[in-house]
Amino acid sequence: MDALSRVIEALKCLPGVGPKSAQRMVFHLLHNHRQRGLHLASCLQEAMQNVKNCSICNNYTTKEVCDICYSEVREKSKICVVESPTDVMAIEQAAVFKGRYYVLMGKISPLDGIGPENIGLDRLLNLVTKSSEITEVIIALTPSIEGQTTVHFIHEMLKDKAHGIKISQIAHGIPSGSDLNFLDSNTISSALRNREVLSL
Amino acid sequence: MDALSRVIEALKCLPGVGPKSAQRMVFHLLHNHRQRGLHLASCLQEAMQNVKNCSICNNYTTKEVCDICYSEVREKSKICVVESPTDVMAIEQAAVFKGRYYVLMGKISPLDGIGPENIGLDRLLNLVTKSSEITEVIIALTPSIEGQTTVHFIHEMLKDKAHGIKISQIAHGIPSGSDLNFLDSNTISSALRNREVLSL
Repeated sequence: MDALSRVIEALKCLPGVGPKSAQRMVFHLLHNHRQRGLHLASCLQEAMQNVKNCSICNNYTTKEVCDICYSEVREKSKICVVESPTDVMAIEQAAVFKGRYYVLMGKISPLDGIGPENIGLDRLLNLVTKSSEITEVIIALTPSIEGQTTVHFIHEMLKDKAHGIKISQIAHGIPSGSDLNFLDSNTISSALRNREVLSL
Repeated sequence: MDALSRVIEALKCLPGVGPKSAQRMVFHLLHNHRQRGLHLASCLQEAMQNVKNCSICNNYTTKEVCDICYSEVREKSKICVVESPTDVMAIEQAAVFKGRYYVLMGKISPLDGIGPENIGLDRLLNLVTKSSEITEVIIALTPSIEGQTTVHFIHEMLKDKAHGIKISQIAHGIPSGSDLNFLDSNTISSALRNREVLSL
C-alpha cells in the first residue's frame, strides 16, 4: 500500500468519514494546502500524546490539573456533573456557569455493561464529601433512560452520604427556536411539569 | 490556545468539516482511539511530505515515475486524459481501462484565469508526438462548459499536430441506476444523440 492509500485508509478512523470523503480530504490537502496538512498532522500528534484527564474533574487537559479546576476565580461552591468533555465545552460556550465541573466519562448503562463503578462515581463522592466549600451539585445529563438512571443513582448516593448539599438537575423542556409540533410527548410533559411562574 | 483547541482548529482545514464535527472527531480519537490518531498523524505527514506529481503523467506518486507509467503490462497505445488524480482512481476502480493516463490538473476556465498554458497541455502534446506507440487519445472530462472547452481545445491541438492519432471522448449519457425523470435535458439529448445500435 502506498503513502496515498495509507492516508486515505487512516482518515477513515474519523467518525463520519467514509472512503469518498477521505479521498476528497487528501486530494484537497495535497493540491493546495500541504502546509495546513502538515500542521494538522503535528497538532494531531501533540494532542494524542499530551492530552490526558484532569486529576480532579476528569476533563481533558495537557496539565495535571485543568485550567478550570486550577482557576482562582471560578466559584468553588458549585459542581456541575456532566457526561463528557464536549458537554463542558458546550456549557462554557454558553458562558453562564461560573462554578467547576466533574466529568463522568459515560452514563450507567447495564445493557452495555457500564455500572456505577465504571464512571468514577466514587471519586465524585470523595470530591463532594472532602471539600467543605461545595454547597450545590448540579447534574447536567441528557434526559435519556441511561441519563436519568445515572441522575437517580447520583442523587441517592449524595443524599445518603453528603448531608446538607443541595442537589439539582438542569431543566428539561422546550429548546429555543423549536416548534411544539415537532417535539416528543416526554419533552412536552417535562416542560409542563416544570413550568415557571411568571411574576409581574 | 491549548493542544485541544489547536487540533480542533486544524481539522477545520478539511473540506466538509466545521467546528462541531472537528470537535466530535477529536473527542472520538482521544476517548478510545489514540493509537489510530497517532497513525493518522504520521500517515498524513508522510503523504504531505512525499507525494508529488509523476514526471510523465502528473498523477500523484511518491516516486519519480508513477506505477502506471512505469508498468510494463499497461498498454502503451492508449492515453486517457483526465482532470485530476481522483479521476484516475475512479477509472482504475472500474478496472476496464488498461492504457495509461495524463492528468491535466484542471480545466480551461477563462473566468478563473485558467488558460491552456496553465493545465500542462504542452506536455501532453509533447508526450503524444514524441511517442511512436500512442495510437489513441481518450479524453475523459466531465460534460460541463469548462470540460467541453478543454475537450475542444485538446482536439484542435492534437488534430493539427499529431497526425494519424485517433482522438475520442468518453460517452455522455444516462448513468446506471438513474431515472430519466430526474435527468437534465442536456444529458437526455446527449444520450439520444449517442444512441447505440443493438445488433441481433
